Amino acid sequence: MNAEIIAVGSELLLGQINNTNARYLSAQLAGIGVNVYYHTVVGDNPDRVKKALEIADKRSELIIFTGGLGPTKDDLTKETIAKHLGVELAMDEDAMSSIEAYFSRNNRVMTDNNKKQALVLKGSQVLKNDNGMAPGMLYSKDSHHYMLLPGPPFEMEPMFAAYGIPAIMAKMEQQAKIVSRVLRFFGIGEAALETRLEDLIESQSNPTIAPLASESEVTIRLTAMHESEAAAISLIDEMEAKIMERVGHHLYGYDDTSLMLELSKLLKAKGMAVAAAESLTGGMFQQEMTSLPGASGLFKGGVVCYTNEAKINMLQVKKETIDEYGAVSEQCARELAENAARLLGADIGISFTGVAGPDELEGHPAGTVFIGIHMNGKPARVEKLLLSGSRGINRTRAVKYGCHLLINSLKG
Amino acid sequence: MNAEIIAVGSELLLGQINNTNARYLSAQLAGIGVNVYYHTVVGDNPDRVKKALEIADKRSELIIFTGGLGPTKDDLTKETIAKHLGVELAMDEDAMSSIEAYFSRNNRVMTDNNKKQALVLKGSQVLKNDNGMAPGMLYSKDSHHYMLLPGPPFEMEPMFAAYGIPAIMAKMEQQAKIVSRVLRFFGIGEAALETRLEDLIESQSNPTIAPLASESEVTIRLTAMHESEAAAISLIDEMEAKIMERVGHHLYGYDDTSLMLELSKLLKAKGMAVAAAESLTGGMFQQEMTSLPGASGLFKGGVVCYTNEAKINMLQVKKETIDEYGAVSEQCARELAENAARLLGADIGISFTGVAGPDELEGHPAGTVFIGIHMNGKPARVEKLLLSGSRGINRTRAVKYGCHLLINSLKG
Repeated sequence: MNAEIIAVGSELLLGQINNTNARYLSAQLAGIGVNVYYHTVVGDNPDRVKKALEIADKRSELIIFTGGLGPTKDDLTKETIAKHLGVELAMDEDAMSSIEAYFSRNNRVMTDNNKKQALVLKGSQVLKNDNGMAPGMLYSKDSHHYMLLPGPPFEMEPMFAAYGIPAIMAKMEQQAKIVSRVLRFFGIGEAALETRLEDLIESQSNPTIAPLASESEVTIRLTAMHESEAAAISLIDEMEAKIMERVGHHLYGYDDTSLMLELSKLLKAKGMAVAAAESLTGGMFQQEMTSLPGASGLFKGGVVCYTNEAKINMLQVKKETIDEYGAVSEQCARELAENAARLLGADIGISFTGVAGPDELEGHPAGTVFIGIHMNGKPARVEKLLLSGSRGINRTRAVKYGCHLLINSLKG
Repeated sequence: MNAEIIAVGSELLLGQINNTNARYLSAQLAGIGVNVYYHTVVGDNPDRVKKALEIADKRSELIIFTGGLGPTKDDLTKETIAKHLGVELAMDEDAMSSIEAYFSRNNRVMTDNNKKQALVLKGSQVLKNDNGMAPGMLYSKDSHHYMLLPGPPFEMEPMFAAYGIPAIMAKMEQQAKIVSRVLRFFGIGEAALETRLEDLIESQSNPTIAPLASESEVTIRLTAMHESEAAAISLIDEMEAKIMERVGHHLYGYDDTSLMLELSKLLKAKGMAVAAAESLTGGMFQQEMTSLPGASGLFKGGVVCYTNEAKINMLQVKKETIDEYGAVSEQCARELAENAARLLGADIGISFTGVAGPDELEGHPAGTVFIGIHMNGKPARVEKLLLSGSRGINRTRAVKYGCHLLINSLKG
């Protein structure tokens, strides 16, 4: 199946935002064996949307639109496609109730233009919007499939993952089954990983091997195609075994997971809870930990000890420790981890102290980070990192390293 | 002049990178009064590049290509365009010397395929590459202008700014100035905003009025065009005044800013510092506050009091308060804000307690949030919110509301 992604929105053509939706959808579609041959961006203009649609009709089977499903007058994607296809728009009762519920929950009065959001192409499969009002939809006609998705990424991405992909897979003519598996690595760069796997990557055929780097992590997507699903899985298993022989100690998980999620699973299995002391990371570790539902059993709380006073007053770090070694030190990290666990009644204490940047601190260059991990009443183990990113990247990487170290400590 | 940007590169269609070049070029072109009507992305495939070019020829006067100018076999943009236009490729001596100089500076031996980079469309205006090897070029034929730019943003952006824009402006017949201004609103939905401004939006011409919704925020971009820049600014000023009369109390900033950045500016101006107590937001407020460089002067630290024990032990909330009113209560929010400020020695204390979801808590539905703000030694003011998003969205919105309330409190 060949696909094209059409983003509708003048803000894209004015350079106000990046078309991150096209990137997200392309990566997802690659994973299920759909070839994306074109991205198009067009403004909120019915004539030009219509022309883009006519062009796409000639060259693509699956046409995915993002944007233009909202309540305002310049949201015209649905209307333009309906006219082009000669289909009516009909009120979707479920979507309407969910929009009404949204307003009543928020004690807000619904303006009439919001009703427009509940209109769908008559005969389409409606895709629920769990994070907003406008539903998505998939409409099929004459071997063409038209999927309409909302523009805001925080609505579009979960909708596509939960409802869009299954809907597309159901439409794919499946002589062959496509099976895909993502291996997730931490602590090895993309170039190093590729070098270790160079011969496998060069001679790839079935499964395909697609490495992709993101912030501090590298993934490899294995995709196999076979008439039998079991045989496709076997092909992937065999290739995974070869990869694991070489870089297996860097693997931390499969498919849709994260270091924090893997950490949570381990904590739950062991019935242990964490407390945190964060200086340079400013609450990022705790924020991520509490972003998972059910965090309360695994997390006792913590302190964002951004100043030396907070370290001393809230976490009882000895003033002498800071005077003698500084706040950016192994000694400080150790006391922070141990005291956080004790004061918050947790099995495990983790601490982050260091220099996010851009400026140096206490004579340490930006990127210097100490992570302390205190567990089972033993003196905290401290790791020193020397990172080299921007302020934001150093903070993010420090948090990921913290998760990684905790995972390894829990695995023993 | 109407423009289209065609990015050539299979990595874009596989979702490996965002098409940031299209965003950069669009913003730059808007600044000189060129209307960008389409972005296209096409893979490293001569047939599909040719077809994209044929389509662009029919609808755009200025066609800007990015990518595919490098030394490898899949770099085929130049060759495809040359064939389509019936123009020869010729060696550009300046580009060739600069490529040779590049290799000798780096003590590397030049492989033959690098010479390909010095080929340009015969008769084109060559655009120098100050940060890489492949030159850009502008070729004009039959009222069409074709600009070819390298793909890597760190080569493309300086080339376009230094040589691309002047080359385009020289081709433009009239040089109307375009001025754009973004107004940022919080606490009003996109539909409600549009309803209040309906007549202005319907009768818009110059400036244009473009509303855009993102997470909990709405922006309006005003864009005016005039031969005189001062006159364009006046047109925007007049329209802004009309908008402000109706929804001015929701405006929090202009252009590239955020609620947290505006809050930081106000804190800095008043020489005040914040401490935080976060329950449901789990450190998100503090993480965002510390993401800005220079946060240490404005932020004393805080506690992630995810459990009742942490509220009592770390922030001295009275046990009776939690027993009588619960942790999700006005009373608890008040004590948290006041005690955070006191214990951390801050001028301002802010607290977040509530139910992120998905489950209810203490009989309160998911989305119930109490935000306490303590300032100037007065009893904390507490606001109750009833949000209706997912767990993640409720947490994000709570933090934005917190910033918004703090901004309003600081403004008095």
